[in-house]
Amino acid sequence: MENKRKGSLLSFRPDIKVLDATLRDGGLCNDFKFSDAFARALYEMNVAAGVDYMEMGYKASKALFDPEKFGKFKFCDEDALQKIVGDNPSPMKLSVMADVGRTDLKRDIGGKKDSVVDMVRVACYITEIPAAVEMLEYCAGQGYETAVNVMAVSKARDEEIDAALEMLGQSPADCIYLVDSYGSLYPEQVARLTLRYLEAGEKYHKSIGIHAHNNQQLAFGNTIEAASWGASMLDATVNGMGRGAGNCPMELLLGFLKNPKYHLPPVLRFLTDQMLPLRAQGVVWGYDVPYLLTGRLNMHPSAAIACVRQGNTDYEGFYRALQEKD
Amino acid sequence: MENKRKGSLLSFRPDIKVLDATLRDGGLCNDFKFSDAFARALYEMNVAAGVDYMEMGYKASKALFDPEKFGKFKFCDEDALQKIVGDNPSPMKLSVMADVGRTDLKRDIGGKKDSVVDMVRVACYITEIPAAVEMLEYCAGQGYETAVNVMAVSKARDEEIDAALEMLGQSPADCIYLVDSYGSLYPEQVARLTLRYLEAGEKYHKSIGIHAHNNQQLAFGNTIEAASWGASMLDATVNGMGRGAGNCPMELLLGFLKNPKYHLPPVLRFLTDQMLPLRAQGVVWGYDVPYLLTGRLNMHPSAAIACVRQGNTDYEGFYRALQEKD
Repeated sequence: MENKRKGSLLSFRPDIKVLDATLRDGGLCNDFKFSDAFARALYEMNVAAGVDYMEMGYKASKALFDPEKFGKFKFCDEDALQKIVGDNPSPMKLSVMADVGRTDLKRDIGGKKDSVVDMVRVACYITEIPAAVEMLEYCAGQGYETAVNVMAVSKARDEEIDAALEMLGQSPADCIYLVDSYGSLYPEQVARLTLRYLEAGEKYHKSIGIHAHNNQQLAFGNTIEAASWGASMLDATVNGMGRGAGNCPMELLLGFLKNPKYHLPPVLRFLTDQMLPLRAQGVVWGYDVPYLLTGRLNMHPSAAIACVRQGNTDYEGFYRALQEKD
Repeated sequence: MENKRKGSLLSFRPDIKVLDATLRDGGLCNDFKFSDAFARALYEMNVAAGVDYMEMGYKASKALFDPEKFGKFKFCDEDALQKIVGDNPSPMKLSVMADVGRTDLKRDIGGKKDSVVDMVRVACYITEIPAAVEMLEYCAGQGYETAVNVMAVSKARDEEIDAALEMLGQSPADCIYLVDSYGSLYPEQVARLTLRYLEAGEKYHKSIGIHAHNNQQLAFGNTIEAASWGASMLDATVNGMGRGAGNCPMELLLGFLKNPKYHLPPVLRFLTDQMLPLRAQGVVWGYDVPYLLTGRLNMHPSAAIACVRQGNTDYEGFYRALQEKD
């Protein structure tokens, strides 16, 4: 691997964009039951902090998920979004995530001209790329900017990744995301994967994004590693709020980036005013030993999430049980 | 920077040694008031886990620090150590840290033949190198392996670091440590500094160590970054216990290293049996927003430690006050 790092620690790359995924990945911690006041404060914080994209949640199918059981940010109905952001007079773009197989695309995603949403991010596993491409084509046809998050690539073989990147290269996706769903990748692996994604990105004129998880306390480190090689869409969540061990914390990322358009103080204020109360209400996320263990074994965090929820602190027994399952 | 990374993610480098600094850096969180039972369990855990060195604490001068106010691991009297480890029949080596200006060397460090201690680590700031060299010479003359931890190099200028490495190269130190006291270094900086330290290390036949702090959730990432370029002495503490934001967690490091001599389960058991009770007693360490802010500003963590102790959660105000001080 030659030195192809981009930019320096004192300069900034204007191509870098920050995406706040707090409502979306963080919503996995509280069934998306954020208050309107929280969402509005987050929106205002992101605008003040110079964040480039704010992800409002999922576009989940109401045939598959009961709206009585989940907060509105699981569904992101247009009127619900407009209640938070009005017609979004800010320069910040809004995104929603649509999962392959869990979205009722034609019913729930209308034309861009009737929506405050700017970008649809399609999430899929590597075996679902053709379905993702169909969704990307549909959303691009409706006038949206699009991105695709190929989840759990730490489980994929090299030739699968190459084939996926070829297919996605030929899709309308504006951005292809490297996603470390299990928080199992080390920075050296992130660097190699980023370079591989960038190769496809350069060939097909797409930007590359990074979405990291903090199972091994590497979410921030892996995010800036990917950025240093050329990834330009960087996902973060306030206080790292996200499923299991959570994500790259926005406060660390904005503390690192040198572009003067980013501002840390609004994030710090939000941590005090909104995130501490959320934790005090009992919403749980962030690094804990069980997440390290699923991350280290390159496994889905579900067992670790259950372990933490049950208050099971027999880490040695939990690790043994994981290894028997693996 | 060419690709001079050493080893691969699947192999292991036999030159890598792990040092457990829980009693020493962790002692800064509880005034070294660990019980003998805790210290003995930690010793047994380290032996079972295959850890190479265990640091028992400081050799602090009793003229400067009141033994009534601190636990025994601040002083590491020979009889106190032997009460924990007997004559240390294990292959694991024991170390103590001696601070420049805070150690009564001739009174407190006798000949190696009368001690279970194998290595003395001298800690100094970059302006104190000549005093550190004197201490290294004394300790080496007494028969000890020696290492030197030059603290807070993130504040030092390049030419100061070069001069320090020259002087330490000519000293008897067996190992020179890169120390990120303020948790302010990013992995790219760690890589560059590691290569600079290694250059001196190769010239003078010394190994290079890394001691990281977790202010920006980079202690583990920076440790494996340094290791990947050739650093071979890796400091960790159980659960990351250490001053302020703490250190590289042993459970992450041993989960990463591939040498089959290392074993994670004893560490997991220790987390359950010893570290959870310690936290439950109210001992506080680990990542928190104020530490990120001093780390980001490359400042000593003392203000952040006070902020956390006071339960001050006005992060924005704290950040503003830090910037005014800086």
